[in-house]
Amino acid sequence: MSTASPTTSPTATLLISCPDQKGLVAKIASFIYSNGGNIIHADQHTDFTAGLFLTRLEWQLEGFNLPRELIAPAFNAIAQPLQANWQLHFSNDLPRIAIWVSRQDHCLYDLLWRQRARELTAEIPLIISNHPNLQPIADQFGIDYHHISITAETKAVQESKQLDLLRQYKIDLVVLAKYMQILSPEFVSQFPNVINIHHSFLPAFAGANPYHRAYERGVKIIGATAHYVTEDLDEGPIIEQDVVRVSHRDQVEDLIRKGKDLERVVLARAVRLHLQNRVLVYGNRTVVFA
Amino acid sequence: MSTASPTTSPTATLLISCPDQKGLVAKIASFIYSNGGNIIHADQHTDFTAGLFLTRLEWQLEGFNLPRELIAPAFNAIAQPLQANWQLHFSNDLPRIAIWVSRQDHCLYDLLWRQRARELTAEIPLIISNHPNLQPIADQFGIDYHHISITAETKAVQESKQLDLLRQYKIDLVVLAKYMQILSPEFVSQFPNVINIHHSFLPAFAGANPYHRAYERGVKIIGATAHYVTEDLDEGPIIEQDVVRVSHRDQVEDLIRKGKDLERVVLARAVRLHLQNRVLVYGNRTVVFA
Amino acid sequence: MSTASPTTSPTATLLISCPDQKGLVAKIASFIYSNGGNIIHADQHTDFTAGLFLTRLEWQLEGFNLPRELIAPAFNAIAQPLQANWQLHFSNDLPRIAIWVSRQDHCLYDLLWRQRARELTAEIPLIISNHPNLQPIADQFGIDYHHISITAETKAVQESKQLDLLRQYKIDLVVLAKYMQILSPEFVSQFPNVINIHHSFLPAFAGANPYHRAYERGVKIIGATAHYVTEDLDEGPIIEQDVVRVSHRDQVEDLIRKGKDLERVVLARAVRLHLQNRVLVYGNRTVVFA
Amino acid sequence: MSTASPTTSPTATLLISCPDQKGLVAKIASFIYSNGGNIIHADQHTDFTAGLFLTRLEWQLEGFNLPRELIAPAFNAIAQPLQANWQLHFSNDLPRIAIWVSRQDHCLYDLLWRQRARELTAEIPLIISNHPNLQPIADQFGIDYHHISITAETKAVQESKQLDLLRQYKIDLVVLAKYMQILSPEFVSQFPNVINIHHSFLPAFAGANPYHRAYERGVKIIGATAHYVTEDLDEGPIIEQDVVRVSHRDQVEDLIRKGKDLERVVLARAVRLHLQNRVLVYGNRTVVFA
Repeated sequence: MSTASPTTSPTATLLISCPDQKGLVAKIASFIYSNGGNIIHADQHTDFTAGLFLTRLEWQLEGFNLPRELIAPAFNAIAQPLQANWQLHFSNDLPRIAIWVSRQDHCLYDLLWRQRARELTAEIPLIISNHPNLQPIADQFGIDYHHISITAETKAVQESKQLDLLRQYKIDLVVLAKYMQILSPEFVSQFPNVINIHHSFLPAFAGANPYHRAYERGVKIIGATAHYVTEDLDEGPIIEQDVVRVSHRDQVEDLIRKGKDLERVVLARAVRLHLQNRVLVYGNRTVVFA
Repeated sequence: MSTASPTTSPTATLLISCPDQKGLVAKIASFIYSNGGNIIHADQHTDFTAGLFLTRLEWQLEGFNLPRELIAPAFNAIAQPLQANWQLHFSNDLPRIAIWVSRQDHCLYDLLWRQRARELTAEIPLIISNHPNLQPIADQFGIDYHHISITAETKAVQESKQLDLLRQYKIDLVVLAKYMQILSPEFVSQFPNVINIHHSFLPAFAGANPYHRAYERGVKIIGATAHYVTEDLDEGPIIEQDVVRVSHRDQVEDLIRKGKDLERVVLARAVRLHLQNRVLVYGNRTVVFA
Repeated sequence: MSTASPTTSPTATLLISCPDQKGLVAKIASFIYSNGGNIIHADQHTDFTAGLFLTRLEWQLEGFNLPRELIAPAFNAIAQPLQANWQLHFSNDLPRIAIWVSRQDHCLYDLLWRQRARELTAEIPLIISNHPNLQPIADQFGIDYHHISITAETKAVQESKQLDLLRQYKIDLVVLAKYMQILSPEFVSQFPNVINIHHSFLPAFAGANPYHRAYERGVKIIGATAHYVTEDLDEGPIIEQDVVRVSHRDQVEDLIRKGKDLERVVLARAVRLHLQNRVLVYGNRTVVFA
Repeated sequence: MSTASPTTSPTATLLISCPDQKGLVAKIASFIYSNGGNIIHADQHTDFTAGLFLTRLEWQLEGFNLPRELIAPAFNAIAQPLQANWQLHFSNDLPRIAIWVSRQDHCLYDLLWRQRARELTAEIPLIISNHPNLQPIADQFGIDYHHISITAETKAVQESKQLDLLRQYKIDLVVLAKYMQILSPEFVSQFPNVINIHHSFLPAFAGANPYHRAYERGVKIIGATAHYVTEDLDEGPIIEQDVVRVSHRDQVEDLIRKGKDLERVVLARAVRLHLQNRVLVYGNRTVVFA
């Protein structure tokens, strides 16, 4: 083991999925070991139903014999015969996030606070909203704020403006932090890396007004769900969920208030897991190597 | 306060709902006080949307000036002008429960153990099943077991046999402890006092095979729901819910196993709350005076 | 019931504790009813061991026949023969809070955000810290920030300065939002209205460095505790607690990070309950009429 | 991958801890792969503070080239140069459990039910108690029940009888299922494989009467802790903990009742994790490869 602290020294992370077969752990671990890498995290999962092997390996770059730019081509030679899908990430390549909001500020504030507190290792250069009112928060944190209003008629045009901004700011990840508009399938196909927070315990109360419907149904527990956005509304792969107990004393406004606390932490956990490359999507499911 | 222990001395409990108006607490509490009653539990709730006041009052019978049989007529004189719905229960009148099961034994065992441990103050003279295989458990606890098989063709006939048994055994409450048959609307209209345990966090995964569907959806939390049975399948008033965290490592059989622990405690809590007359139903909702 | 919305019309709240005896609910409710009050919340609890009756009543001031200034003397005539301790609060008298911090900002930010979002109905005119570094947050929210450093030698002098500030700003409640200094018994006796957040599941890990000690002990769950401050460190009446699961993968810094999310919500819930006059202290315990 | 179902085909499991160094994953995985093994579970953890690498590997015996009796010596050749501590287990070698009880039956019933339901893959040939009253449950399940009373004077003698029984019944694991006696250090040194359930959220309320003390302290959450027994009472490595919310309405007897549900599931989870060889102890800590 290197004497460098495992938390500060830069690392490389491989996320791999491939058809299950014998020897996968040995082959992949040997690739890292034979190049002098010190693995600091390794986790794997086999979905026997799908016949799929999924793994995450993280190792320290210090002392690794391959230069960064050669790791991907070298690993490709191993991955190809295994028919593997894989991603390679370096911990000191900071992903760039755009946060999208509407009128509510609790998730926005929370994400910005966490980024400053270094719980989220990412840059946040851009906030997009269909309303103007959260501009002061963007100003306060020194982040560009673009107000792009959306109507049924203007949606296609406005989404192309949004896509332009994502390209212009070199955005890697969009976080919908209570953005109360539905993204079109065209948008999602062009920019698929989007995390959303839904204010219910999906699949319960998918769609609009989940707190009102939870109140009407008389549930004793409410929840929040962070998921990747797909073409099918509220149907994307779930990253994280959490719940809180409610009672007959809770009115709709109490559900909304309690739900805000859930939304903040569930979204923040999901974004953090994503940024740490701990989430692997396959089919409509996630493996979370937490 | 009487020197009698509040937990062992017999009590009377009123459950009341009526249109909200001024002075309700004063009027009802005065009825008990003026007759020398010592209130040991009082709770109330106002649903401002429905304009409804709901309350539960429990007082010690020892030292109460009205004999048991006169309490109801005396309170009726107060309740009528308030347009109140109300129930009166005495803690030493033991309700009689029929437990209905299919093939799974975990909820049955749990309820029988709790009744013996005096967590459930009720008699359980009858078990009904559409399968013969849990007869030995009934024998072990000395409870009558009636095997009444159900097919689409025989359902109406068999339900009338079931109703006969409920009458014959003077049953007050049916507990569906993983009884995997749907009760007909006719049955429910004739015997409306039925608690069911559904193996999902309703309204998610209503209907059949909730654990399989939870696995397919890739949720990170599963739940169980105890509710009163109504004509609309899985739509009745919810009494209690609870959840447990799952991960990608959990297969369907793990969800089923983890779910069993949930089902046991959620059903037991709901039955206990019902037996303590802590649940008031209005509309499709419950107030739980826990 | 008044047609005014129960959430916006001003209300009065009585918090009462007295020796248990018959007729208490009736007497107190009659006082409000006879003066034309519409009760919107009533809850009570009897501690049979202590022989104590505790209750909270909230009613709308609109339509109440007694003017504000006469309610206390009128109720006193009822309370005296009952040997009752009682408090009377009006919902539109905003309590004034001083938040005390050291170097960590997460609880401070959270409380300020909630006050702006109207989850906390109070004024926050003053922040006191033994460090200068959170001044910019105070500036951003337009709140006075007083840096009062503390050493073993200067403690007595500095505490008298702190007490001066509390008087000067007419502070009703001090919230220790990760203020890492111990208040002297003299301070507490002069200003007893203090809520603290302790970063462990008390009574586990009372005292210093709870996260480090939790890590060393290898617990699988960590917690946070909000309590009133008394002379005995970490021994005051508990208002609220919550927990989160941890595993062997969590290092001390992960416990600290996960703990911050707990500290925020547990402290905020406790402050909100206090501000809504839902917490009654007796002995070293609380009744929380939530 | 073998076409055999991963859940029914017998497997081998290695639990290993050794000083951290490069190449461990590769070396160990290669041992299994080079002998034709199909890994169905692999997990590892590095404790950087302790400089320790810990791992669990499970692979199918079907198709593995080494006969069972040669796996240990073969792996020893790899383990020795790594200075590794390791254990090898086969899934179809059923461990033999002795359950120890006093007067309470809830954990005993629960463990027996789970063993029958195949949630616990073990044999349970022996129940030991310091009281005679749970004999009927043992009879009902056809298990030998030995009543060995304990007093301060007889403890040493009686413990030697207990040890004789453990040898005679070839017991691998003792489960203290609410056995309300303290084992002597001599006993523990001779039979160190003991899991206990403590009825508090350790380290809070270690020692006697935790529910009474929790009530007195006025906590808002209670817990239960399953741990390995060591010489130091209530100080052994924690396997699993869980908690439940309580309020001022809960008397000591309510804490006891709610606690029983916790004790059942926490103990059962810990025993299951142990039986699946998912728990690795080092120092006074556990790694739980769940």
